[in-house]
Amino acid sequence: MLTNIEHIGIAVRDLAQANDLFARLLNVPPYKQETVESEGVTTSFFRINQTKLELLEAANPDSAIARFLEKRGEGVHHIAVEVDDIQAEMERLKSEGFTLLSDQPKPGADNKLVCFLHPKTTNGVLIELCQEKHS
Amino acid sequence: MLTNIEHIGIAVRDLAQANDLFARLLNVPPYKQETVESEGVTTSFFRINQTKLELLEAANPDSAIARFLEKRGEGVHHIAVEVDDIQAEMERLKSEGFTLLSDQPKPGADNKLVCFLHPKTTNGVLIELCQEKHS
Repeated sequence: MLTNIEHIGIAVRDLAQANDLFARLLNVPPYKQETVESEGVTTSFFRINQTKLELLEAANPDSAIARFLEKRGEGVHHIAVEVDDIQAEMERLKSEGFTLLSDQPKPGADNKLVCFLHPKTTNGVLIELCQEKHS
Repeated sequence: MLTNIEHIGIAVRDLAQANDLFARLLNVPPYKQETVESEGVTTSFFRINQTKLELLEAANPDSAIARFLEKRGEGVHHIAVEVDDIQAEMERLKSEGFTLLSDQPKPGADNKLVCFLHPKTTNGVLIELCQEKHS
């Protein structure tokens, strides 16, 4: 089941500049910064009510975020939907004809298991499924 | 004060196709459809927890959504942040150096007063402030 819009991922060129700007825009400071080495990305998180904004800066020039910035420029990169059972949702979506970008959930930022859907099957919107890892 | 990510606006070419796709993706049907004549847009709404997805189809070829689709293709068009006092937030953001796209709040879909910020001042993200109209 899909339970919440967990976060909105925003690709930025300069995380320090964007942190300052979004802090003034949202009138709250970022509450955490985290690098996900496997994805080549440094992230910074803001929270409004039950949804986060996740700023994404490329940690290396070969990362998906670096390629996105080159092709599309800064802006919304993905929408993350929280699910209660990521394996079950991946099966359901495959059977509905959606294309998943990985066969298994992968470790993401913020203690999550994640799986992306190909934006060609979702009207140009990159959708991430995410589920809190059980500790 | 910013109180919630009220909705995420997604530009689509064919609302009937996108309605069917997002209903299968989110596993819920759209709960309402509405045309905003002044903006030249037909909208359809899905809800997950406290945030909505608003699909946006151009109602005429001169609308902002038609121009966006031509330039960028389908995908996320804007993020709407709910505020408790839109006039006060507009003043605060102007004083922080953000560029507003209107001097006064305008009527939007879903019984809201809205004001957009220029994406050139917000890292490429089109931000909408919205406040429920008092009846």
